[in-house]
Amino acid sequence: MPVIEEFAESAPDEDEVFLAHLGGKLSIQPPAELLNARRLSMISTPGVARVSSAIAGDPALAARYTWAHRMVAVVSDGTAVLGLGDVGPAAALPVMEAKSALFKALGELDSVPLVLATTDVDEIVETLVRLRPSFGAVNLEDVSAPRCFELEARLSRVLDCPVMHNDQHGTAIAVLAALNSAAALLGRDLASLRTVVAGAGAAGAACARMLVSAGVGEVVALDSRGAIHPGRPDLTPAKAELAALTNPHRRTGPPAEVLPGADVLIGLSSTTVPPELIASMAPDPIVFALSNPTPEITPEAAYAAGAAVVATGRSCWPNQISNLLACPGVFRGALDSGAGRITERMKLAAAQALTLLAADDLARDHIVPDVLDPRVAPEVAAAVAAAAPAATAAPTAPTPPTAPATMAD
Amino acid sequence: MPVIEEFAESAPDEDEVFLAHLGGKLSIQPPAELLNARRLSMISTPGVARVSSAIAGDPALAARYTWAHRMVAVVSDGTAVLGLGDVGPAAALPVMEAKSALFKALGELDSVPLVLATTDVDEIVETLVRLRPSFGAVNLEDVSAPRCFELEARLSRVLDCPVMHNDQHGTAIAVLAALNSAAALLGRDLASLRTVVAGAGAAGAACARMLVSAGVGEVVALDSRGAIHPGRPDLTPAKAELAALTNPHRRTGPPAEVLPGADVLIGLSSTTVPPELIASMAPDPIVFALSNPTPEITPEAAYAAGAAVVATGRSCWPNQISNLLACPGVFRGALDSGAGRITERMKLAAAQALTLLAADDLARDHIVPDVLDPRVAPEVAAAVAAAAPAATAAPTAPTPPTAPATMAD
Repeated sequence: MPVIEEFAESAPDEDEVFLAHLGGKLSIQPPAELLNARRLSMISTPGVARVSSAIAGDPALAARYTWAHRMVAVVSDGTAVLGLGDVGPAAALPVMEAKSALFKALGELDSVPLVLATTDVDEIVETLVRLRPSFGAVNLEDVSAPRCFELEARLSRVLDCPVMHNDQHGTAIAVLAALNSAAALLGRDLASLRTVVAGAGAAGAACARMLVSAGVGEVVALDSRGAIHPGRPDLTPAKAELAALTNPHRRTGPPAEVLPGADVLIGLSSTTVPPELIASMAPDPIVFALSNPTPEITPEAAYAAGAAVVATGRSCWPNQISNLLACPGVFRGALDSGAGRITERMKLAAAQALTLLAADDLARDHIVPDVLDPRVAPEVAAAVAAAAPAATAAPTAPTPPTAPATMAD
Repeated sequence: MPVIEEFAESAPDEDEVFLAHLGGKLSIQPPAELLNARRLSMISTPGVARVSSAIAGDPALAARYTWAHRMVAVVSDGTAVLGLGDVGPAAALPVMEAKSALFKALGELDSVPLVLATTDVDEIVETLVRLRPSFGAVNLEDVSAPRCFELEARLSRVLDCPVMHNDQHGTAIAVLAALNSAAALLGRDLASLRTVVAGAGAAGAACARMLVSAGVGEVVALDSRGAIHPGRPDLTPAKAELAALTNPHRRTGPPAEVLPGADVLIGLSSTTVPPELIASMAPDPIVFALSNPTPEITPEAAYAAGAAVVATGRSCWPNQISNLLACPGVFRGALDSGAGRITERMKLAAAQALTLLAADDLARDHIVPDVLDPRVAPEVAAAVAAAAPAATAAPTAPTPPTAPATMAD
């Protein structure tokens, strides 16, 4: 397959990959110049006792004098790790470390990976509630559908802090941004696009919802049994909700029934899509083949079959649609604005910021900014913060309290 | 009081203290040179999938390819924070951040503060069990007695990793080290020293036990109701255990009854000890007045009353006895050796390493090394590792697996 060869030409040696992860990828950075008696007495005892005492008297000060309010817990139970599936928390940890590393490198966002030895939704919620004073937001990663829908919703309610399942919404944000760009390139309106989302797991369901939210003309989601529509008797509650929101014309059947005449294919399902199906789509179709590591169809084959704009999830081709485009920026913006949750409006703003960044030099092979573009995280963060609801406890300019804290013996 | 003036002469301005904590004290450090496509493809997808897959196939590899096995969870429920008492998790967090900062700066040891919104021992145990794959050891801090004894014991049993309550054993290790030095200075044997430990909370109880373990001649612990002995009807289970281990001559009563004729006073009780009581001790008494921030008696007053060697918990006087002398070194040694728990032998080895460091230039005002002495953490770590039981899964030289990991779609 051309894709493997193309990647292999520049592929790091396998040993080099493992070496890059040796000992783990993260470390803690303490304050500078800590090791002198004067600094020690401020950072540690007795100075730190004044800070503790102040927070004890006014809990809002914790947002100013600890890292919790700006620190994201990157949480996984290892039930849906990359393309590997349910490999458990220990195997998930390298992926969570990578996320933390990238949140910091791309967005100056601090986060800590917390992998859990339980998959029970009640227990996960309970655990994070007990840990609540330790963090300011939760990024769920690699949690299997449909559990992830309930988990995200419950955490968002009970924790009263920004909570987002990145595999769902980070992907959806990047997909919407790319679709906006592709539509602009082809002179189309979102409202005129009949879109098929192949895959109704975490990413597929969230993409479908976001595209509906953004005003895409018609959105049909498919799972392994075909188009999701209210007539199907086998739908999980999450898929039943999706059926109610999408597929207004009650299309049924497999891709071969649903794709012909469609304007957009968003592939999120680890299947193969034959070129004939691309060729059966409406003229100048938009094809996002996002299955990782092997896209549903290669860009070469998709273009040969008549696609007008093609994207994948891989960095070895142009137009990499990755949730790294959305996060860390979304969390940065949510934390900076003091928002208590991540709203639909904030997610749409993130997508818009990405589309604007790509618009600078919009082209068939440049419909989203590069993951490594240093403007991405700050501009997404700014857009998200601007779209946040007015915070109930807006962060104020940092001023030490004026009343001296008395220290009890 | 001379102590406050002496400290105030070099005391940082209060605003400067709060400024030192603004925004929290910790941040995450990602791998170097992450932001290029090649490195990204190794650290993140697709390279990280190979690492996850390898760990899924062989869980022991998590110790080699994640940070968990070398990362300490610094855990508190905020029930006994410094001299402030039960101020809760948010107020405890600055203290935990300070610990993490110092573990890194002093001992190159990575740790993450986790403060809990529950004080129920069952819930704390349950929470850490669920988080077990995320860390390699647990340092309990600022958890109130007597709950801390049960909590530490249960965590050590169920987590199967090094667990230590630093306020207990870190303090005890430093006290034993200092006592060894003071005894050597005065030409005395530990076995000849009648010792009074004033205070039977977390630190006092652990000190009393460690001194007994180390062969101190006679150890009597006091709480607010006086000497702890089996005849008292009001003892908690923890204090009853202490009564069984200490006070062979069944001494009773307040400090005024127990101190006269004693060789050593270890003060860990936030009370005041008048000079007359020091004067009533045996000739050339050893006095460790460790109450923070205000010692039971100042060194000046203690020496004036006849003390031979005096220490406090404060950096503004010589002979600062601090649990920073014990940790991070103890955890560093435990993790480096792959030990499944921290044994008595390991703690005694830590104390011995500290005594040896002070022996280089042993003097009345130098019975322990300085907290900032860069030799402390590595030498304590080495001694602790050497004293560790043979690990069941000894860390091996890091070699990437030879079988290529296949990645399922």
